[in-house]
Amino acid sequence: MRKIEHIGIAVKSLEDSNKLFEKIFGQPAYKQEEVESEGVKTSFFMNGPNKIELLEATNLDSPIAKFLERRGEGIHHIAFDVNDIEEEVVRLKKEGFTMLNETPKKGADNKWVVFLHPKETNGVLIELCQEIK
Amino acid sequence: MRKIEHIGIAVKSLEDSNKLFEKIFGQPAYKQEEVESEGVKTSFFMNGPNKIELLEATNLDSPIAKFLERRGEGIHHIAFDVNDIEEEVVRLKKEGFTMLNETPKKGADNKWVVFLHPKETNGVLIELCQEIK
Repeated sequence: MRKIEHIGIAVKSLEDSNKLFEKIFGQPAYKQEEVESEGVKTSFFMNGPNKIELLEATNLDSPIAKFLERRGEGIHHIAFDVNDIEEEVVRLKKEGFTMLNETPKKGADNKWVVFLHPKETNGVLIELCQEIK
Repeated sequence: MRKIEHIGIAVKSLEDSNKLFEKIFGQPAYKQEEVESEGVKTSFFMNGPNKIELLEATNLDSPIAKFLERRGEGIHHIAFDVNDIEEEVVRLKKEGFTMLNETPKKGADNKWVVFLHPKETNGVLIELCQEIK
């Protein structure tokens, strides 16, 4: 794990939250992207070596819709940048962690992603991500 | 705001969570520190340009005790590294944001800290922090 790649924040309205975070960072989102398989629309803000990802649900079955219903708007996950995602999965499994998906899947922003089970990580949803070459 | 300085995670037991995050990062916490004024014991893990701060409550009035009671363990705040904290407070107030404390106070890890009101930032508790010289 080389750095925090991004923090994912669940929001009700991407349009409203884009304006809000533009004020916070003093610059607009650099990209907006829909991930149909996850039922989300996302936008990304740069912050030095890190990013902030805002996530809006596009349907009621989306994990983000369920998160909003249960907890309201707020931080949804932390994503760590890894060099070799498959190697990291092997290492973390040896340490006793469970993955929500063992096989990396395509996430937003051109990344392979794997999630760790938050029940084993103090309630924190941790994503591992690696740039797709 | 120059980068994510750290992510603060509320935990029940610093001792247990130190072991857990040591497994995740493959290295131990580099420092442990009590902030009496905030009613917390903290530990810090390095992750490239970023840090993870674990927070355990030391008394029942601690903000962390209240957070754990309300939401359970999980991500408590995001802290952004700023060059001039007073200038950032002026800028963000002009943009319409409210600070929980307008005058920077001493936080963990040798920092001046200011918190933004999470009701105005999509439920995300945002900390600004600047190294104390």
